[in-house]
Amino acid sequence: MSLLEDLAASYRVLAAHDIIDGYGHVSVRSDRDPKRYFISRSLAPELVTEDDIMEFDLDSNPIDQRGREMYRERYIHGEIYKARPEVMAVVHNHSPSIIPFGATAAPLKPIFHMAAFVGEGIPNFEIRKVQKGTNLLVETPKLGKALAVTLGKKPAALMRGHGSVTVGQDLARAVGRAIYLEANAKLQMQAMLIAGSRGKINFLDTAEVKASAPVQNYGRAWNLWRRKGLALLKGDGS
Amino acid sequence: MSLLEDLAASYRVLAAHDIIDGYGHVSVRSDRDPKRYFISRSLAPELVTEDDIMEFDLDSNPIDQRGREMYRERYIHGEIYKARPEVMAVVHNHSPSIIPFGATAAPLKPIFHMAAFVGEGIPNFEIRKVQKGTNLLVETPKLGKALAVTLGKKPAALMRGHGSVTVGQDLARAVGRAIYLEANAKLQMQAMLIAGSRGKINFLDTAEVKASAPVQNYGRAWNLWRRKGLALLKGDGS
Amino acid sequence: MSLLEDLAASYRVLAAHDIIDGYGHVSVRSDRDPKRYFISRSLAPELVTEDDIMEFDLDSNPIDQRGREMYRERYIHGEIYKARPEVMAVVHNHSPSIIPFGATAAPLKPIFHMAAFVGEGIPNFEIRKVQKGTNLLVETPKLGKALAVTLGKKPAALMRGHGSVTVGQDLARAVGRAIYLEANAKLQMQAMLIAGSRGKINFLDTAEVKASAPVQNYGRAWNLWRRKGLALLKGDGS
Amino acid sequence: MSLLEDLAASYRVLAAHDIIDGYGHVSVRSDRDPKRYFISRSLAPELVTEDDIMEFDLDSNPIDQRGREMYRERYIHGEIYKARPEVMAVVHNHSPSIIPFGATAAPLKPIFHMAAFVGEGIPNFEIRKVQKGTNLLVETPKLGKALAVTLGKKPAALMRGHGSVTVGQDLARAVGRAIYLEANAKLQMQAMLIAGSRGKINFLDTAEVKASAPVQNYGRAWNLWRRKGLALLKGDGS
Repeated sequence: MSLLEDLAASYRVLAAHDIIDGYGHVSVRSDRDPKRYFISRSLAPELVTEDDIMEFDLDSNPIDQRGREMYRERYIHGEIYKARPEVMAVVHNHSPSIIPFGATAAPLKPIFHMAAFVGEGIPNFEIRKVQKGTNLLVETPKLGKALAVTLGKKPAALMRGHGSVTVGQDLARAVGRAIYLEANAKLQMQAMLIAGSRGKINFLDTAEVKASAPVQNYGRAWNLWRRKGLALLKGDGS
Repeated sequence: MSLLEDLAASYRVLAAHDIIDGYGHVSVRSDRDPKRYFISRSLAPELVTEDDIMEFDLDSNPIDQRGREMYRERYIHGEIYKARPEVMAVVHNHSPSIIPFGATAAPLKPIFHMAAFVGEGIPNFEIRKVQKGTNLLVETPKLGKALAVTLGKKPAALMRGHGSVTVGQDLARAVGRAIYLEANAKLQMQAMLIAGSRGKINFLDTAEVKASAPVQNYGRAWNLWRRKGLALLKGDGS
Repeated sequence: MSLLEDLAASYRVLAAHDIIDGYGHVSVRSDRDPKRYFISRSLAPELVTEDDIMEFDLDSNPIDQRGREMYRERYIHGEIYKARPEVMAVVHNHSPSIIPFGATAAPLKPIFHMAAFVGEGIPNFEIRKVQKGTNLLVETPKLGKALAVTLGKKPAALMRGHGSVTVGQDLARAVGRAIYLEANAKLQMQAMLIAGSRGKINFLDTAEVKASAPVQNYGRAWNLWRRKGLALLKGDGS
Repeated sequence: MSLLEDLAASYRVLAAHDIIDGYGHVSVRSDRDPKRYFISRSLAPELVTEDDIMEFDLDSNPIDQRGREMYRERYIHGEIYKARPEVMAVVHNHSPSIIPFGATAAPLKPIFHMAAFVGEGIPNFEIRKVQKGTNLLVETPKLGKALAVTLGKKPAALMRGHGSVTVGQDLARAVGRAIYLEANAKLQMQAMLIAGSRGKINFLDTAEVKASAPVQNYGRAWNLWRRKGLALLKGDGS
């Protein structure tokens, strides 16, 4: 079944791009029932195959658990699908360059066209405002809902002290945004370094964001990523 | 046919050096007709083989399209070939370290002999001066012409919010300049970091640039790159 | 025997993550005798196999040397096992990003949940306070004891001009802490860069550290790492 | 013949560590005649095999050229062997992190024990003081001699706008110093970043350098590197 194969491939693609390591997950809304989503059982991304995919309802209850261990943070996915009917795919990760932005007051801004969606605004989820003294994990429906509220209508949100979440109307966009959010953060950091404290950085302006973000579907890259992900899945022999 | 094989190998070489990822392209002027150039059909660089190469006239109309999808930004190549009769190869990419320089006022300067050509001056293409509210892509003849005007007689130009273009009298030089423009940007960033805001950086001087840039043909590296690119093409099984 | 296989795999895992290069070592306390520990003979980590593992008492005397060369710094391990009965595994390495923190007054702080243990405090071992004019190596019982005193009850210690040591109640934790101590250092460096000299960085607070550090067992990652390490051991053909 | 095999392996090792790319070279003094040295014919390092090694006298004239193209910068090697009878191996490279130090006034200092030799002082060769308007290449006996004078009795020298040279009493030391000079530069850059402009960095002191540098033979790493280099040579099938 093609959607689940694409989902398993997405785990491999994100791992190959160092967006996820032993942790992080990606999900996709069911194409047969918008009140269901698919995500791997609790497993390191590089080990995920199509057989590891489980189905959940939007409260993140498993449809058919069969004793399999589940990601404790699956509420990130379920609550976003609930709040955002048009979102079909969600990525949660700890990609390196976005962590420093979550921990400082420096806002992410769109430095190149591949990440024009950054210009729509990337809110930062401060879990402490919802609950003090957590282990930072979004492991309850309440925390998942709060994250979905912070995300609002945006394509991505940082999560302070933890990572980020990106969403999209298909896997290509959610995965592409995760990859290019990381790239934008890294490049912006370097621009801040060379511009210095008084220096101006010439980001994409509002009109450029509007002309670019909505049409960017990461289609050409997705063809390559998907092919690589499927090759990794086969090489695995699982 | 050797020129097209070299062109396909160049896609692989640039991808292996992380100069291009799912995006970016390289072209070569036809050796039979200076009013024609070769470039891949719209495809991620790592997938390009000799069979994917298409021929275009200098207005970037396909000679024999046969339904193949074309890069929307092929005007970068066509308009530069029109404006610069001695240029035989063009690379367009989003290599990471040059993006921060395109977005700030810090000019690129030649920090080591491998990138002495930087000392000839690297202009920065501000697409907003030509057209406001674009998606940053050079997808019309008008934008291609404007980029060629900004490039002028130089070996490379930055493209604000987007990437860069490098040119040369053969594939070895256009590819080598793309690789070493990226290297120079990265090293210059680090020198700016350790020199600090008041610090002086000792770049190549005018006489050194003049003695070095014109004779640098990246010949020894090209032999290695070409060999690796051809191996990648074969490993691909295409 | 599973413990030694896990230990050999840990050498490969740490090398694959660039935490150790030609140098660095990992040990595990014997599961049969708490007064003994296992560590490789003196060998570059990427070459270590189960057959290279030697057994030592807590004074770091070999049980059965058979002419094999021993790490001169094995006292790091023996003296920590003596001082910390609950510690079952120790990693010593020169991972890149922690060296700059050992050499400056900037304290490491927990920037993301994967390295929450950093919030328990990471002391810095200044060997000069124990002995002047050393070659920086912890190659005597006296220096090993002094390092164990500096470490105290903490999960890790920096070693100025040299590297770091991480400990844990099993290999997964000692290895995981080595990997994520390096990650935290790199991310904190970047946050310091973008926050600037007056800028505030929002680290995990005390309650978050308390909720997260003790329960983090790196279990999901360890399953992946161990599998990769064993694959590397087999590919080696030794 | 073992020495030439080690030399060919050294090319591969340095390329695998990204110390040399398409450029850079390593040589070894003849074990039969101290007035001779061995170096590859002009070739990208990753392609060098034992069959490509040529013999030169200390004026850098080939003993038996047989039409093979020679490195134009071989005078670096010949003139250093002339000036330093105890030096048995020389590496010349453009490794990335040392370039920014060559271009600024910030002196390299020893930040960790693996690069304790940096504490003996790393002079910076300013070719402009010898000859203005060069292409930066040390391609004459005169420039080679001047570089040897700048190097003096030190283990390494930077070359402004170009790269560096490291020497040693055997290949292990010359190669190891090239690898750890690069590492030290990278780490020192990061320490400068986190220490800030007023911040103090705690480098190895004079007594520590004296205790560490002379005994560091990179022996354990060399065993690994050599093994990897030979494997690469065999995989090459040349």
